[in-house]
Formats: sequence, C-alpha cells, structure tokens
Amino acid sequence: MSTTMLKVKDISEQGLLKILHHFCPKDIIGDDAAILPTQPNKSLVVTTDALIDGVHFSDRTTSPEDVGWRSAAANLSDLAAMGAFPVGITIALGLTSDTSVTWVEQLYKGISECLQPYNTPIVGGDVVQSPVLTISITAFGQLDPNHTILRSNCQPQNVIVVTGVHGASRAGLELLLHPELGASLTEAERSSLILAHQRPKPRQDILTILWEGLSFNSFSNTQDNKNSILVGGMDSSDGLADAIIQICQASQIGARIERNQIPIPHSLTKFVSPEQALNWALYGGEDFELVLCLPPIYGRELVKKIGVGAAIVGTTTDDTDVLLIDRQGIYPNEQLTLSQGFQHF
Amino acid sequence: MSTTMLKVKDISEQGLLKILHHFCPKDIIGDDAAILPTQPNKSLVVTTDALIDGVHFSDRTTSPEDVGWRSAAANLSDLAAMGAFPVGITIALGLTSDTSVTWVEQLYKGISECLQPYNTPIVGGDVVQSPVLTISITAFGQLDPNHTILRSNCQPQNVIVVTGVHGASRAGLELLLHPELGASLTEAERSSLILAHQRPKPRQDILTILWEGLSFNSFSNTQDNKNSILVGGMDSSDGLADAIIQICQASQIGARIERNQIPIPHSLTKFVSPEQALNWALYGGEDFELVLCLPPIYGRELVKKIGVGAAIVGTTTDDTDVLLIDRQGIYPNEQLTLSQGFQHF
Repeated sequence: MSTTMLKVKDISEQGLLKILHHFCPKDIIGDDAAILPTQPNKSLVVTTDALIDGVHFSDRTTSPEDVGWRSAAANLSDLAAMGAFPVGITIALGLTSDTSVTWVEQLYKGISECLQPYNTPIVGGDVVQSPVLTISITAFGQLDPNHTILRSNCQPQNVIVVTGVHGASRAGLELLLHPELGASLTEAERSSLILAHQRPKPRQDILTILWEGLSFNSFSNTQDNKNSILVGGMDSSDGLADAIIQICQASQIGARIERNQIPIPHSLTKFVSPEQALNWALYGGEDFELVLCLPPIYGRELVKKIGVGAAIVGTTTDDTDVLLIDRQGIYPNEQLTLSQGFQHF
Repeated sequence: MSTTMLKVKDISEQGLLKILHHFCPKDIIGDDAAILPTQPNKSLVVTTDALIDGVHFSDRTTSPEDVGWRSAAANLSDLAAMGAFPVGITIALGLTSDTSVTWVEQLYKGISECLQPYNTPIVGGDVVQSPVLTISITAFGQLDPNHTILRSNCQPQNVIVVTGVHGASRAGLELLLHPELGASLTEAERSSLILAHQRPKPRQDILTILWEGLSFNSFSNTQDNKNSILVGGMDSSDGLADAIIQICQASQIGARIERNQIPIPHSLTKFVSPEQALNWALYGGEDFELVLCLPPIYGRELVKKIGVGAAIVGTTTDDTDVLLIDRQGIYPNEQLTLSQGFQHF
C-alpha cells in the first residue's frame, strides 16, 4: 500500500504520533505537557481557534498544507494584534478513521512552514478519533507589557492605519471557486490574489517597525504613563469593517472612514465593480492585516515605513458613529455594519 | 421559549458569547488574545486535549457539568504531572446548531468548578459550528525549573509511589452503565466510585507536599546538580500500567510492581473478582493520580504525608523488564502491557 493511500486507521495511534513528532522539537515533546522557556519581564499571551471540515475549510479550495498555514497564520495574527511574538503552538486534531496519513502530514507541513520565519515550534497536541475532521490550534506568545496593543487603547483624533490591502483574500477565494472569473487578469495578478487567500501572512513584522522604527520609542505604551503614546487596534481577520467597529466599541469612540482611502488591489477592479471590490475589502475578511490607531504624526510615519499597501483610512472621533464617508461627494455617508460578517450559527 | 429549550441556533453568536463571558474574568477577555501575568523565573508549561461527543463522552454517563469538570481535570492533571500549577485555560468548542444553550452553560459551570480551587481563569476560546460536539481545552501552567517532574527523571532503585487508589474511575463508569451491578455496595460506596469517575481531582496538592513538605527541599531537582534529588513520573490518566511502562521507557529502566501493593478501593472487591479489580486498577485509566519515582527514603516520607490511598507499589530496576510480581507466590510474574489501554484508531 502506498503512503498516499494509507489511512489513519491503518496505522496505530503510536505510528501516527511518530510521524507527527518529526515536526516537533524532540527536547520539548514526549511528556505530559511541554515546557517552554520564556523571557523574563514578558507577559504570556494566548489565543485559540477551532476549524471544522466543511465549515471553515474544504478540499475544493484548500489543500491540507494551506489549511495548516491558514490555521497557524490566524493564531499568529491574533498574537500580532496584541503586540506579541509567538513562542509555541499546540494542535488538537479530531481525525476520521478514513483521513489519509498524507493529509495529516501535509497539514503539519503547512503549519510548520507558516511558523518557520518566527522559529516557533509545535510543542504538543492531541490526536483523537472524530466523525468529522476538526483542528484546534492554540498559540502562545509573549509581549513587553509596555508594548501592549488593545482594542480599547484607541483615542479620538487618532488616525486609523491599515497595514496592507483588503479584499484580496476574498477575491482569491472567488477565483478558486469560479476559475472562469477574472479572464482579464494576468497570471501574476491571479496568483497574487489566490496566494492572499491561501497563504496570508501574519504581521509580526509591523511590531518591529512600531517599537523599533518609530520616533516615539522613548515613550512607554501604558496608560499609567501620562507621556505615553497608546497604540490601539486589532487584526482584520473578520473583515475591515468588523475591526473598525470592534475598536470603536471597545474604546467608546467613533470613526470616519474615507471610502477612497481603503487600499484595494488594483486587479480586483479588473473583474468586479468598484462597489463589489469595496464590499469585499470591508466585509470579505481573512486579510489578516492590522488595523491600528495612533496619533497622526506617528500614523503617517508608520505608513511610510511599512510602504506599499499600508494606508491611513480615516480618523477616530469623539462621537460613537462609525461612518463610511466620501470626500468626493458621490456616495452618501453610510454606517459601517457588523451584519455582513461571518455568523457561525 | 424557556431557556432550557433554547438552542445555540436560536441566539446569535454574540448572544452565546455574552453568556459564556460570565465565566471569564472581564479584564482578560474581549481582545484578539488574552494576556496573563506570570511569575518571573518560572517556565511556561502547556498541554492540550480534544474530546469528541460519542467518543470521549456521552449523555448516557456524563452530564455536561461532568464533561466540563473531567476535561479541565485531565489538563490540570497533565500540568501536575510536570510539577506545574495552572495559570489559565482556553476552550475551543465545536457546537451543533441543536446544542442547547443550557448544555454549553453547564459545561462551562463544570469547568469553572474544577478550576475554582486553583483560582485559574478561563481566559479565552473559540465557538464554531460543527456537525458533532467537540471540546478542546488547552491549559497553561508554570513551574519552577528546579522542580520539573519528567518521565525520564526516574532512576533504578527508586521506589514507585502512587498518590491514590486505582480502578475507582473505571468501576464508577461500570456502575453508571449497569446500575444493576453492585447491589452489595452501600450508597456511600456507590457514590464514591461514581464520583471518582465523574469528578476526578487533579493532584496539584501533591506538588505542595513534594516541594514544601519533604526533607530534601534544600536540594535542587535538576540533573546539573550532582547533589540533586530527581523526582520522575507522570499521571495515570491512561492507566497505571501505561504510566509505569511509559516512565520505564523514557528513563530506560525496568520495574517490579507488587500486585498486592496496588491500592484498590475495598468496595470494588464487593462486586467484582480480585482479578477484575486488579485489571481495572492497571488498565482502567482516568484515575488521574500521579505515579512518581524517587529514592526510597523520600518515597516513604511522601506516602506518609499524603496519607490514605497513597502507596509504594514497587521499585525501579537496572534492566528494562516491567513485571507484575506476587511476593506470595500465588500468581506467576507477568509483563505489564500497553495493549489493553485505549487505542484511538
């Protein structure tokens, strides 16, 4: 029997674990729990995500490597959104008896590839039988308590910075589901959008720019310090509109978002209307960029340092309205809404 | 519609999260990830477990509170087995649309009740839709690096200490599945066995005795220190036999276990044969006691300090045989085996 045909029911649990242990550091795994070294004076940050076959991923659009990459990226993005660098992840898998061993290996390969730039190990997990494929990833990170990014850290008269383009992931998904779309796209444009969906990059790189590259680094990012610069924000995994609304609710502020300032890949407008492209940018989700609020001078500096894709999309306000506005006066103001986001039940 | 009839599909995801947030500390949840304070000079310890409806739990024998308690206890037991005290857990839930809201609340109630003695918060999670109920819990703990308990820490001529009786959890399960059994038991005996199955206690209390109550506390538990006393071991969640074999394999040693020294609740022998009772003690699993190896003088001291239930069940050896022996000479020696343990696939 070739390995590609081998099912998990054909090998013992020990046999499967032996294969998966190749992806884990030998000195950390193999006991009841994993011990991870951490740096002194850092806080522990944890986040968890569950993914279910047929609900969150499907063989139709996503290879097991991509499922793995995306699962890891989602968790690392949550850490980045707090200001944290990853130190390790655990994986709890529910596998059907008919799951192929290769599928599981490729899942782990995709996870490992996503973690590799951060030297972040898979430090443990659990593999159990389930009538449906399920994946739960928990990621641990650490952060300097002076460099915490909270949703509630945002202040009125901040600028709202997005660290990259939006709508690309959703466009990539459409191209995978309907390959006949986008005939006018170049091969490079098509690949770029599909890659945005399959291999989103968590933005830990932004943290290095924030804390090492900007001129406010002599300040402390804590509310206790009256001279401090607070950086607030979250990631845009559930959509840019959702992120802006969540930030405003947590910080009890409002926002004015300028529809022409939202960075959208030019290639989108080659196969959908500008209205559709904007809708995907606001509500498509899974772009895994950071949405950050900070004083205008630092916001402008940050956008310049990040470069292509980053933009100031609006400003925060004293009221609690979250409005999409059009400086050109073509479209009326509209309230951003949570209702178009993904609802689980 | 009464709350007991309410399904998760009847309330929005936000509505469900609002209910679950009652079980979480308000200052920790609500952002992309949770930030946990940790003590300096401690190592981070992580463990994860997945549970699937129909595979790991069933409405027939286990209420949602008990499912919650047992899930949390299993993770805390893994931490205890490393020498770690818990600092927080995350919960990833896959719920069917028809799962009742009350079921989820009671699950969280059971988890909270188990965590309560350790002041350990639920710090985050994820709730998603799934065709089958799934629960993944990840627990984080911390330990003093000098007080690490590893499977590979065991030495020949150690005594093997179990911190409590074995076989009770499996007996409790049988009583739940076959209530007609155990007619000769008193009500207290029956409840005690059933409680051992439904509400197992993680043994963090043993750590306090180990590191504060024994006379070797001036020693450091690291292999670097030549004067150190190493404590090795793991928990008996997969069965006492499994624990002893895993310890011996990791430490490359053998063991002689005395069949008459294994602590088994007296009540078991009132409704099953001594052979059956011993089989449950060795292979039944889920007793969540610690199985520890340490020098005889400290092993005896530990058993005395723990009191009722704790016992020295055997000694470790230079060879690699793991034998069940009978000092009374009635039964022949037999190899302990992994084969009767739970196999997932």
